Amino acid sequence: MAGLTLASSPLVQADEGQWQPHQLPQLKAELKRIGIAIPAEKLADLSKHPMTAIVSLGGCSASFVSPTGLVVTNHHCAYGAVQRNSSAEKNYIANGFLAKSRAEELPAGPDSRMYITDKVENVTEQIMRGITPSMSGKQRHEHVENRIKNLIAECEQADGKNQAYRCSIPSFHRGLEYYRIRQMMIRDVRLVYAPSDKIGNYGGEVDNFEWPRHTGDYAFLRAYVGKDGRPADPSPDNVPYQSKDFLTVSAQGLKNGDPILLAGYPGLTSRYKLPEEIRYARDVSYPARAFESRSDISVIEAATAGNAEGKVRYASVVKGIQNRLKKTEGLMAGFARKDIAAIKDAQDAEFRSWVAQHYADKDFLKDLDAVIASDMALTEEEFAYSVASNSDLLKSARTLYRLALENQKPDAERKAGFQQRDLPFITARLSRLEQSYLPNVDQARFTAGLQRYNKLAAKTHPQGLDVLLPLPESVSAFYPLTELGDTAKRLAWIKKDVAEFRASQDAFIHLAVKLHDIGMQLEDRRQEVDGNLERVIPKYMQAVIAWKQSQGKPVYPDANSTLRVTYGTVAPYSPRDGVTKGPFTTVEGIAEKHTGKTPFIAPDNLLAAIKDKRYGVYKDPVLGTVPVNFLSSADTTGGNSGSAVLNKNGELIGLNFDSTYESITKDWYFDSAITRAIHVDIRYMLWVMQEVDHADNLLKEMRIRYPAK
Amino acid sequence: MAGLTLASSPLVQADEGQWQPHQLPQLKAELKRIGIAIPAEKLADLSKHPMTAIVSLGGCSASFVSPTGLVVTNHHCAYGAVQRNSSAEKNYIANGFLAKSRAEELPAGPDSRMYITDKVENVTEQIMRGITPSMSGKQRHEHVENRIKNLIAECEQADGKNQAYRCSIPSFHRGLEYYRIRQMMIRDVRLVYAPSDKIGNYGGEVDNFEWPRHTGDYAFLRAYVGKDGRPADPSPDNVPYQSKDFLTVSAQGLKNGDPILLAGYPGLTSRYKLPEEIRYARDVSYPARAFESRSDISVIEAATAGNAEGKVRYASVVKGIQNRLKKTEGLMAGFARKDIAAIKDAQDAEFRSWVAQHYADKDFLKDLDAVIASDMALTEEEFAYSVASNSDLLKSARTLYRLALENQKPDAERKAGFQQRDLPFITARLSRLEQSYLPNVDQARFTAGLQRYNKLAAKTHPQGLDVLLPLPESVSAFYPLTELGDTAKRLAWIKKDVAEFRASQDAFIHLAVKLHDIGMQLEDRRQEVDGNLERVIPKYMQAVIAWKQSQGKPVYPDANSTLRVTYGTVAPYSPRDGVTKGPFTTVEGIAEKHTGKTPFIAPDNLLAAIKDKRYGVYKDPVLGTVPVNFLSSADTTGGNSGSAVLNKNGELIGLNFDSTYESITKDWYFDSAITRAIHVDIRYMLWVMQEVDHADNLLKEMRIRYPAK
Repeated sequence: MAGLTLASSPLVQADEGQWQPHQLPQLKAELKRIGIAIPAEKLADLSKHPMTAIVSLGGCSASFVSPTGLVVTNHHCAYGAVQRNSSAEKNYIANGFLAKSRAEELPAGPDSRMYITDKVENVTEQIMRGITPSMSGKQRHEHVENRIKNLIAECEQADGKNQAYRCSIPSFHRGLEYYRIRQMMIRDVRLVYAPSDKIGNYGGEVDNFEWPRHTGDYAFLRAYVGKDGRPADPSPDNVPYQSKDFLTVSAQGLKNGDPILLAGYPGLTSRYKLPEEIRYARDVSYPARAFESRSDISVIEAATAGNAEGKVRYASVVKGIQNRLKKTEGLMAGFARKDIAAIKDAQDAEFRSWVAQHYADKDFLKDLDAVIASDMALTEEEFAYSVASNSDLLKSARTLYRLALENQKPDAERKAGFQQRDLPFITARLSRLEQSYLPNVDQARFTAGLQRYNKLAAKTHPQGLDVLLPLPESVSAFYPLTELGDTAKRLAWIKKDVAEFRASQDAFIHLAVKLHDIGMQLEDRRQEVDGNLERVIPKYMQAVIAWKQSQGKPVYPDANSTLRVTYGTVAPYSPRDGVTKGPFTTVEGIAEKHTGKTPFIAPDNLLAAIKDKRYGVYKDPVLGTVPVNFLSSADTTGGNSGSAVLNKNGELIGLNFDSTYESITKDWYFDSAITRAIHVDIRYMLWVMQEVDHADNLLKEMRIRYPAK
Repeated sequence: MAGLTLASSPLVQADEGQWQPHQLPQLKAELKRIGIAIPAEKLADLSKHPMTAIVSLGGCSASFVSPTGLVVTNHHCAYGAVQRNSSAEKNYIANGFLAKSRAEELPAGPDSRMYITDKVENVTEQIMRGITPSMSGKQRHEHVENRIKNLIAECEQADGKNQAYRCSIPSFHRGLEYYRIRQMMIRDVRLVYAPSDKIGNYGGEVDNFEWPRHTGDYAFLRAYVGKDGRPADPSPDNVPYQSKDFLTVSAQGLKNGDPILLAGYPGLTSRYKLPEEIRYARDVSYPARAFESRSDISVIEAATAGNAEGKVRYASVVKGIQNRLKKTEGLMAGFARKDIAAIKDAQDAEFRSWVAQHYADKDFLKDLDAVIASDMALTEEEFAYSVASNSDLLKSARTLYRLALENQKPDAERKAGFQQRDLPFITARLSRLEQSYLPNVDQARFTAGLQRYNKLAAKTHPQGLDVLLPLPESVSAFYPLTELGDTAKRLAWIKKDVAEFRASQDAFIHLAVKLHDIGMQLEDRRQEVDGNLERVIPKYMQAVIAWKQSQGKPVYPDANSTLRVTYGTVAPYSPRDGVTKGPFTTVEGIAEKHTGKTPFIAPDNLLAAIKDKRYGVYKDPVLGTVPVNFLSSADTTGGNSGSAVLNKNGELIGLNFDSTYESITKDWYFDSAITRAIHVDIRYMLWVMQEVDHADNLLKEMRIRYPAK
């Protein structure tokens, strides 16, 4: 339908693809067609502008916008930094924060990092060396894990003790290729400017995932380094990082149909799943998870009913479950709206028929189907096990016992996550539990979880587990017989050895020891399945790539939190027949939504500037006013928050921050007709900086290209 | 906002105005500007095409589309005719009805009429003659009423006993002008074709007032006359009316921005109200009426709780109240969304300042304000009186007593509504009460009404009424002491004289006699106020017309169910920043909305035709499919249902049938940015007739201009 009612708009093309920069030369013709002027080869070069200006914040994307380390990202990506610096007297969340000088810039927090990708090497050959066909899945998986560990150590040790670089080796196409990525890691990050959340989070949860949108979701940070120019721990002696490169900001604007590039760190997609996997998610996994979430919330609510303190204690737990539930329900609704499995069926049939014609040995497809089936079956058991273990005390006990077991090995051989360097995180997690734990609630959740487990299909019960689990009605007896509810006593177990665990009469330690073997069996089987997936999926993906190549189409790997480039055009969409949304919203829409009630409270000076039409140079000639947000057909996902949106010349014209509700299933299937990413228009950002927040120092610091008079 | 996001669409102009055809030559330049090719003088001539093809159905509009009396209108306008011919075996509502020959055409019903306007004379001079400045409002009003009565009698008597014509003398600008309108009245109307309500009412109440819309709201009737060619009572001997004129149907379609004309019979608007009147409606009258409706519904529901038969008996009463309530609430919401009073304030101030400069005698404005204030005050008392009389038995008793009083006079002198010719209607109404009356419910409504009356501000209580009203708690005593609940006994009172009423011990007859003088006092005051309004509003409107003339703008009178022409362009609108709606919907949207549940059940053959893309010649070159409904900026209101929508050449390209939710306050204020009328695209109608209903006989009968191949 979309295409129909948009017939008078410029032709909207399928702009699917989160491309590795080195792939861009393959897309030359496509980039030229939509009007990108910057050469594909230049975009592909991580040592050249504009890619050298693109930054990861770990979970969010960002970019340099001045030669002295100024970085722009989303307000929601800098929210933690704003929050930790706020107090009742200095409410930077509500009032915004602007450092008028370097001295006023505030520490973004000890965990705050900036990662600047500077080297990407294909290490597939090194990883694969030594793998033999006779290896079991588990052996294969362990082989790969060890190779990765070594290659990372080699990369990081080259840097000595400075910790200037972090290295990682993500797999692409689930094992087809491995790239070693070296990133410079800035450890002294400071907050420079964030508008009031009345601008930066205007619309709040109500408008989340919605369009039309009117959010000024931007903020500025700055990278600081030691006087030697190298990353350093936070210190007053540090100096602003002299950014090798930065983006020019263009206030010249863009219009419907204009091409854009978007560079950032998308987190995770599942675009190459088989139709069976989609059906499994849609019909089995999502409904079961949604049911589990809803049940758990009900149990917590019942157990805290009439207990105000209990409600507060579990508020963040409930919120976390609700967020997951909302996402799951959104995906289920999306799958209900569009039969993505059927679309994939057609694609899969076409692919398999092509394979049948072109491949002598098609056994890899049978192999693939079998491994995928084993993956889904194992996932079912893992899920059942998690339902049966719905107790924070049990989970703590299992972590502690595993730690004691791993501690028996040399550090390098310990399971990832249980090494020496992981200890601070484990301690913090076990300590934090006291903020969200009450024995009666934990007991209710554990009991109800066991009851639900008992109702799950027998084939999903891990073998041997049922006889080891307590009866739901006996769980109440556990709580008087455990000391794990006490934080000091819980933490004391971190230092205990395996013998002490095995001798313990603590009900939960005892249960954790008893369940350990079952857990290890599941873990071993997971390694086996993962190893098999890593063996067979690369073959599958190679065939997919060959198939697409036969059609002249390149193939991008699923997102894996590495630097990607996507492109598209500024484009509206039709959510249903007779309705067109976007591509632009305007400042007048802010006033239109303003109710004076959260989340629709616009600041008075913003409303005044709108009322007085003080648009200045930021007035769009077509819209006749200042644009706020716009839509593009670019391919994004979680992690792309804060990604630079560039015009055809590689100038910054917006920041990515969300996508539309209709896009919710895009991690599975990119529907070019309705998938739209939501961006802040840089003109709104600059306009607020000038008219509302008077951030003149930053406007001066950036290189801004203004429209010709 | 609308203009902003629509900036790339053709400029949308203010297309306000429901024009008397004779005014159109004043709008020549405007009609030319939007691209109307048919000369304004031709449109102004009621004896020429296309106006001779425009028909009133009394409450709906329609038009001739063949030389043999075939008329097209909305499905909802022909619904009564479909319903009365339907049975369980022949469910024409669900299955549609198509007469394949004249013989199969069905009677539309004894009340069904078609009115063809053939003569319009300005009789202002005759009406006004004899009015003197010394007359009271009541005297003036009675003078006008009598003149009208005489001029109508003269017009209708000229036709002898044939009843071929009906005459009426509506006032324009509330007494500035009077036109005598003669209409030929067709009394034998037959149902020719109506699609299934799955097409004709697709979307039902859910989509009512909504856009996007996908309703095939059309049906065909035929006018029959006696063999002499003159209107006749229904008879098998009658023959199809040889229509003097009919519209050519254009299947050539239209696109966004194209000009349209719309001709029909809009019912009632209030465009020239003063700001105080808008505030009174918004702040006093609508809230009070909404409260009254909600209270009355609650009382009826409580009184019929657990009584299935009682619920059925009052179902249509409740539905009627609910419909009024929905409209009232919609208007309140509309006034809340947009401060129309403030807009009118500005216009009024501008007008008054112009008057101050150009008029020596400005007392008429003071006079106007005073009369309007007296009108609002009296309306308050009339409303209070109606709240205190919320009993069907009391209303019946009052009607009967008034009838007895009027019967004492010669017929010509009786109050309109109580003359000899009104008796059948009075009898029918008093008789019909038995279908929607139960003593306990009537008692509950009367009691609650009196209680609510007692809570209304004292100044709204008509003088002397309070002492005459029963106490709410004493009402229960009335019901054992009345026989008016018995239909035969109720009807028997029609023939009784005044003395019998005065001597009666029937509790409600007694109360009606007791309240009579209060009622007459209100009626006399109403006549006085109306007479004063008729005196002062024409002066006000003359000044408004002079003011507008000074700006080069003509002025149209408020709608009054007379033939009007409005024009506009096919145009989308922006309900809020970032969203554009319309102007077209397409058949694919029908499939998109189809849920298989009422009101979204599309017929299988319709869905199949959509799925197979059997668009035929009805495919729109821009949309790439068959359009269903479209929006225009034309100025319409209730009564315009079924109005012909014409292209620039006066060819039929659609039927008006609704307007958007955002247009709900347009009867008070026409906001050109968001007011849109909703039309059926004639191509959808023709496509359904060809592909779904195979109405080949009608497609042949009409003169259809198809697109060039």
